[in-house]
Amino acid sequence: MKLTLEYDGSDFNGYQLQGQGERTVQLVVANALNQLSPREQIKVYAAGRTDTGVHALGQVLSFQTSSSIPIGRFAIALNGNLPADVSVVQAEEVPEDFHARFSAKSRTYGYLLWTRTTRSAIWGRYSLHVRSPLNIAAMQSATRYLVGVHDFAAYAKTGDVKQPTVREVKKLSIRCLTEGRILVVITATGFLRSMVRNIVGMLLEVGKETAVPEKALDVLQAGTRSENPYPPVAPHGLFLWHVKY
Amino acid sequence: MKLTLEYDGSDFNGYQLQGQGERTVQLVVANALNQLSPREQIKVYAAGRTDTGVHALGQVLSFQTSSSIPIGRFAIALNGNLPADVSVVQAEEVPEDFHARFSAKSRTYGYLLWTRTTRSAIWGRYSLHVRSPLNIAAMQSATRYLVGVHDFAAYAKTGDVKQPTVREVKKLSIRCLTEGRILVVITATGFLRSMVRNIVGMLLEVGKETAVPEKALDVLQAGTRSENPYPPVAPHGLFLWHVKY
Repeated sequence: MKLTLEYDGSDFNGYQLQGQGERTVQLVVANALNQLSPREQIKVYAAGRTDTGVHALGQVLSFQTSSSIPIGRFAIALNGNLPADVSVVQAEEVPEDFHARFSAKSRTYGYLLWTRTTRSAIWGRYSLHVRSPLNIAAMQSATRYLVGVHDFAAYAKTGDVKQPTVREVKKLSIRCLTEGRILVVITATGFLRSMVRNIVGMLLEVGKETAVPEKALDVLQAGTRSENPYPPVAPHGLFLWHVKY
Repeated sequence: MKLTLEYDGSDFNGYQLQGQGERTVQLVVANALNQLSPREQIKVYAAGRTDTGVHALGQVLSFQTSSSIPIGRFAIALNGNLPADVSVVQAEEVPEDFHARFSAKSRTYGYLLWTRTTRSAIWGRYSLHVRSPLNIAAMQSATRYLVGVHDFAAYAKTGDVKQPTVREVKKLSIRCLTEGRILVVITATGFLRSMVRNIVGMLLEVGKETAVPEKALDVLQAGTRSENPYPPVAPHGLFLWHVKY
């Protein structure tokens, strides 16, 4: 079965099961599935293992179940067992070899920046407050160095470079919404840990004009996180938006 | 001074100071002002006394202060003392006779309904989830009975009818946003307690086709809350949006 999941990451220690007593999305979903179908042990796979504080509008999960609940009722039944900050948007039957993580062709994340003199009491939960206006043209100019197949080691989480670090960024756009909201949208076949937050961190420096657009390339070519002087942005502006299969 | 205030009402017992230990917007604002200007006792007036769980994008406060903080820095300074779920959007100097409540010409509230099969983990905090699609044309047809000067006693909070109950609704519109979101926008010179939630409750019954549009008029003419069989909608979809002076 394939589930499309929304969550507000504010009160979660990320998606993946951590130590005892930590509240993770995986844990509350596993508990909800167990209530629905207590006689089986359901193993759940996720398209993206979002970090602490990161939200999702289109996380995808896959698992096998022998539950007799009709597919048309499954989402609503499971939502009845889930807390208010997680919800199943859709449940679909899929071929048995469908795997939320390995069958994914690409993932799209959104990062919301809000440029306003004062912070927002409502959107502060879902966006990064940036006090000064940003140079959008410069940010857009920096994006072109990052699109394509590159070694993104310099944009990965510090110390997290065991695996191959080459990834393909398919699309990277900066969209200006109303009232000073700026949405960074990035699509890649796969992401390194903290890659989106490090890329947006770089773009934000360019937007603030504390770095020239070419710096995005210099950092990329430096090849290690320690050579990248720009911090990642906070997790609460980040959304796992869509997974394509 | 005039402050424009945003807040996420989810974790507040409404705007107005209640019993001891209750977290209200008025209390956290009073504390923040006291930190900023400890030598004076500041009395704060608000345009609308929002109920428990109701949000604000444009609440207005007024008060006198002898604080020497420049007006251009006041909002940011005060935000430094406010919790994440309250923020001052703007601080302005106004004539001494300006009063947030009594100088107001009209108030506009928004109520967000979200029609979707499954509830939303993110928008659930700020909208009422309605599982079935709504008959928007019927809702729009019902609004015309409510616009104008009427006795809104039947749309007031039960038992809260000591004061005169005649109010003028200047505008009432139903706007269809993207993805099944429906925004009810209502402007009036003033509102009775729970009036917006009772009006939206009526419109929702019309949208669900459990009441015909003319019922909005029947209820109005019945003249008492006990004659109104339709419950008010929940507070978490309601926003105090804008106050006009």
